[in-house]
Amino acid sequence: MSRYWSDIVHRLTPYVPGEQPALAHPVKLNTNENPYPPSPAVVSAIRNELGDTAESLRRYPDPTARVLRETVAAHHGLKVDQVFAGNGSDEVLATMFQALLKHDKPILFPDVTYSFYPTYARLYDVAYRTIPLDDAFQICIDDYTQPNGGVLFPNPNAPTGHALPLSDIERLVASNPNSVVVIDEAYVDFGAQSAISLIGKYPNLLVVHTTSKSRSLAGMRVGFAFGDAALIDALNRVKDSFNSYPLDRLAQAAATAAYKDDVWFRECTEKVIASRERMTAQLTALGFEVVPSSANFVFARHEGYDAATLAAQLREREIFVRHFKLPRIDQHLRISIGTDAECDTLLDALKDILGGYVG
Amino acid sequence: MSRYWSDIVHRLTPYVPGEQPALAHPVKLNTNENPYPPSPAVVSAIRNELGDTAESLRRYPDPTARVLRETVAAHHGLKVDQVFAGNGSDEVLATMFQALLKHDKPILFPDVTYSFYPTYARLYDVAYRTIPLDDAFQICIDDYTQPNGGVLFPNPNAPTGHALPLSDIERLVASNPNSVVVIDEAYVDFGAQSAISLIGKYPNLLVVHTTSKSRSLAGMRVGFAFGDAALIDALNRVKDSFNSYPLDRLAQAAATAAYKDDVWFRECTEKVIASRERMTAQLTALGFEVVPSSANFVFARHEGYDAATLAAQLREREIFVRHFKLPRIDQHLRISIGTDAECDTLLDALKDILGGYVG
Repeated sequence: MSRYWSDIVHRLTPYVPGEQPALAHPVKLNTNENPYPPSPAVVSAIRNELGDTAESLRRYPDPTARVLRETVAAHHGLKVDQVFAGNGSDEVLATMFQALLKHDKPILFPDVTYSFYPTYARLYDVAYRTIPLDDAFQICIDDYTQPNGGVLFPNPNAPTGHALPLSDIERLVASNPNSVVVIDEAYVDFGAQSAISLIGKYPNLLVVHTTSKSRSLAGMRVGFAFGDAALIDALNRVKDSFNSYPLDRLAQAAATAAYKDDVWFRECTEKVIASRERMTAQLTALGFEVVPSSANFVFARHEGYDAATLAAQLREREIFVRHFKLPRIDQHLRISIGTDAECDTLLDALKDILGGYVG
Repeated sequence: MSRYWSDIVHRLTPYVPGEQPALAHPVKLNTNENPYPPSPAVVSAIRNELGDTAESLRRYPDPTARVLRETVAAHHGLKVDQVFAGNGSDEVLATMFQALLKHDKPILFPDVTYSFYPTYARLYDVAYRTIPLDDAFQICIDDYTQPNGGVLFPNPNAPTGHALPLSDIERLVASNPNSVVVIDEAYVDFGAQSAISLIGKYPNLLVVHTTSKSRSLAGMRVGFAFGDAALIDALNRVKDSFNSYPLDRLAQAAATAAYKDDVWFRECTEKVIASRERMTAQLTALGFEVVPSSANFVFARHEGYDAATLAAQLREREIFVRHFKLPRIDQHLRISIGTDAECDTLLDALKDILGGYVG
């Protein structure tokens, strides 16, 4: 607290990201990172930009990230003016709250969802109403047709992993012609249907993507919004009033290369999906109730064991999972899908802990 | 324009950065980049973080940029909680407007200064009053003691290059105990005195630095704010409500390495200063009036020639300088200091153009 703070600083409740443990070899299943490295093309692209002397780094990057946006637009069958690029999808989401979600009516998002949303709302003084998921932790589209200043949720949802079919998303977008509907598809590549195909048809749809999950580039901070050019224009106007150059040269090079290697992308996401199915089966066998997941994590609870205690016991073994001290979900663990070896380490530890409880 | 835009989008006047020409070998003296590449230690640090497979890039970076902040704190004799790191000093400045400059009274900054300041003020709805520079384009400290919600200017000022002595800065900070005084030292390393030494004494002083100029890392987007821990805390609270991870892994590695190679830093800044003095003398010999500069650019006008026309004629020769269509300075050119060879190319072109006018 300080008399120099703006009023806004007092009302904030900053987001707390998952722990980044300073250990040599943690089993890190707490922030939904990809267990596989980025495409070798990423390494080449960064080395190429770097050259022998990093001469290019003395110059500002392209403020419009043109080459990257063209590459991603082509990948998704969009025009370049339908693509906005930001410093990670968190920055993209923040820009969106400021540019497109601040209206007289409250925006709507689920009670159980990405916990950064209410934080953005407080930062930009955006009114919001949370809509409860049903008892199976699913989003009910019909709850989102009441008057609103915007609708926002991840598909698949986080931290549940549950995905809605494209037909539900289209029904939602079509029934809200007066407000922007944002589908945050951070995890879409692990088994859900993308709403990008609807962009040409609906001027009120915005789809958010990230390179942090399926492209293995969490360390490089690159995210996107896709939508009608008028929506993208609003995002650019805010961006150009905030930071002309949000993406550095190496981030632009890395993300561009990642989108050009589709084979690597498919292989990695398929491996993660296979590991998720295996993990789901084994957690179920251990007595966990697992929400059916279309993401690179599973959301699970065990009737006999307190989730916070389980997380702490795993942490003692240098295995990190995410536990949220939040209403309705404080008995769940969100477990990122690692390699099969990492999943096995977790499962062995759980067997040991659960056995210990019993014995 | 779109009905989906928030009110704020309509009132913005986005900043327009200097052109990034898509030419093979432009003489680029328009965005105050360093003519020399970053330290070789930067190349090694990035290669080291990258390794053979870029394995680390799949993981999120340290959200607090701890190692970087510790390195920079040690370099400046500060504590780590007196250092805030952002995605370029533009992001740092934006965060500051939101966290520390939004109060009931208007903030004060010069009429001729970094043209992003009024853009930030509009984005965050911060009231401001501009204070005219005197006829020699100098800031008069006594103009900034009127009641205010904050004071903000670059030292050396941009685009003039004029620097105030530390004694003036201290007088200003001491005479404004009820508001935050921000000294934007983007260009300080080219010959002005830093106010960092005053931080322990004044809880209302914030000093902003960038790696884009004297550290040759414009392409990597890393900037800092230095000040009392309570001010830094406010910036962190906003940052953690906006984007947990503003600095990617390679940017953190690059900037840390740059601060560890003081010899390279001193050599490059000394070369730029020598070239600036040479350029100033030669422009003066060509009949230009040059504001005495402590920065890596000069601000010059020629009584006999229209500045916009001169800039256009240079552009035809693939030589880029900055011309601002703004009151009081629309007859000036801001010319970044390049290598001596680049400066000579500019000077030869000017001789040719000016000779052409005469003949």
